[in-house]
Amino acid sequence: MTDYIQEFFPTHSCFVIADDTVAGLYGNRLQQAFTDLQSFRGILEFPAGEASKNRQHKDALEDQLLVEKAGRDSLIIAMGGGVTGDMAGYIAATLHRGLPLIHLPTSLLAQVDSSVGGKVGINHPSGKNLIGAFYQPQAVFADMDFLKTLSDEEFFNGMGEVIKYAVILDDELWQILEDESAAIIDRDPVLLQEVVTRCAALKIQVVEADEKESSYRSILNYGHTVGHAIEQLGQYKLKHGFAIAAGMRIAAKLSESVLGYPASRVERLNKLLDTYHLNQVDYRDYNFEAIWECLKTDKKSRQQKPKFSLMNKDNQPELLYPIEKAELHDVFFGE
Amino acid sequence: MTDYIQEFFPTHSCFVIADDTVAGLYGNRLQQAFTDLQSFRGILEFPAGEASKNRQHKDALEDQLLVEKAGRDSLIIAMGGGVTGDMAGYIAATLHRGLPLIHLPTSLLAQVDSSVGGKVGINHPSGKNLIGAFYQPQAVFADMDFLKTLSDEEFFNGMGEVIKYAVILDDELWQILEDESAAIIDRDPVLLQEVVTRCAALKIQVVEADEKESSYRSILNYGHTVGHAIEQLGQYKLKHGFAIAAGMRIAAKLSESVLGYPASRVERLNKLLDTYHLNQVDYRDYNFEAIWECLKTDKKSRQQKPKFSLMNKDNQPELLYPIEKAELHDVFFGE
Repeated sequence: MTDYIQEFFPTHSCFVIADDTVAGLYGNRLQQAFTDLQSFRGILEFPAGEASKNRQHKDALEDQLLVEKAGRDSLIIAMGGGVTGDMAGYIAATLHRGLPLIHLPTSLLAQVDSSVGGKVGINHPSGKNLIGAFYQPQAVFADMDFLKTLSDEEFFNGMGEVIKYAVILDDELWQILEDESAAIIDRDPVLLQEVVTRCAALKIQVVEADEKESSYRSILNYGHTVGHAIEQLGQYKLKHGFAIAAGMRIAAKLSESVLGYPASRVERLNKLLDTYHLNQVDYRDYNFEAIWECLKTDKKSRQQKPKFSLMNKDNQPELLYPIEKAELHDVFFGE
Repeated sequence: MTDYIQEFFPTHSCFVIADDTVAGLYGNRLQQAFTDLQSFRGILEFPAGEASKNRQHKDALEDQLLVEKAGRDSLIIAMGGGVTGDMAGYIAATLHRGLPLIHLPTSLLAQVDSSVGGKVGINHPSGKNLIGAFYQPQAVFADMDFLKTLSDEEFFNGMGEVIKYAVILDDELWQILEDESAAIIDRDPVLLQEVVTRCAALKIQVVEADEKESSYRSILNYGHTVGHAIEQLGQYKLKHGFAIAAGMRIAAKLSESVLGYPASRVERLNKLLDTYHLNQVDYRDYNFEAIWECLKTDKKSRQQKPKFSLMNKDNQPELLYPIEKAELHDVFFGE
């Protein structure tokens, strides 16, 4: 990474933003790696956790950056998971109307998902990610070393999104996840590199086709419709990957019942989710009416029927497919 | 404008943002014009003045919009001068990661300059426009009726930017401004429409070529280098057009002395600025050393010589031209 920075941003001053947990774990190693980078100005920290992704911490970090004389010739490096990438990315998007940004994602989830695609922002008391921008990084450095020390829970959390990419876009990846599950769960770095690279490439391909989510980008919402409802009902205490795993199970059943998606694929998906321990959240533990209410008030379906990204009988995505309450009810309470 | 909204945003809820002065002057008329627009949700106000263009008012307006259920299917209309356009534009850029935006500029300055080009943002205690984005509006409606009631000072303020466009890009406009000065100062609506349309078209042409100000857009900074220093030394109490008029006088002299810009054009410019009463700020009233210090710390020239947008002997712009202290000193104290 230092070579890249020295080549492309030789005169930029570099600021790293990280939460206090990540700074504690990797701060020293980063300082060492940046020893020869004379433009490195230090690590700015904020308290770890989704609750920090708010205006107050954005303002405080901006103030710090301005005190440290961050100018148009500065570079922001977001080191951490999705919260850090979102907030530091939003700061980079708006300070001096946009500074160059590098993502250094430290979790599997951030490597395969949030660091790619340019959605940045913060939460508002009335909802998640309500304030933000579309802002593409100059580069994303996904270092497999970070994945070695992830907790199992955090690792499987990322696997939820990995499985989503396989199911909607990449049969070969699906096969690898099935065949090599033991080695992947063992964090084999070569396999992980293959998995991360494939997912990031798939996401880039989708985002390049539809950055602002007019339509095609919503393919990435597979499993997220009910997944988000479960996250909301769980007051965002569940890990994202586990919630969308439950969401994918119901999305697959719905795909089968309304679009003829093959039952064999539904079964394979459920088995794969089990293999990667993504069975800790069961949608049947949630109240159907409460889930339906969440779907109805989702900002993507205002005043209309909830819209799902589903898969059809030819294993192709059907985007923004409107679903009736009775249809969801049937699969929710079905086998 | 209501026709346009009904055609292009038939299902969007419309929110107008305006300062309390503009809301007081034009609120009723707007309400009447919007009588048939069922999607109109009201005018959100903030206190008039540059001092309001800050995080606190951005946050408060966002909170209000969210309370009023502004969603992805909402439209923001910025009615007012540059402060309103900048702040409401920045809100539109970031709420739900970007809502459609219409500018309804009420001052000449906003009509010819700030409403076009997509620079939005707010001030920070440590400097102007330090936080913001590039965000293009869906449309700009420049209504000549607003210009009838402008104070003379505010009208001439806008003429400063008009003259800049004429001088750097449009000899025909320059001629019109000379030949028709009496009618223009009388606010002849046909002439004003011609002037505003030409300036907006010129700015669009420049911004389309270089939206993010890599280089060519800096042509628009003619007169702004010393102009900004004067604004800073005057603690932003001077009107922008008067400060850049002084800045253009020195930029023209500098163009003559270092690039052979014709003396006849320098003289014509000075005369034209006098005609439009843009002679209330004189750079010679400011301390040369203080101006030089401002130029050195400007974010565009960090660690380097101050860079000016100048005009050369062929009446073509020379962008980002580095200037030595002695060169500026000579023209500053010269005739």
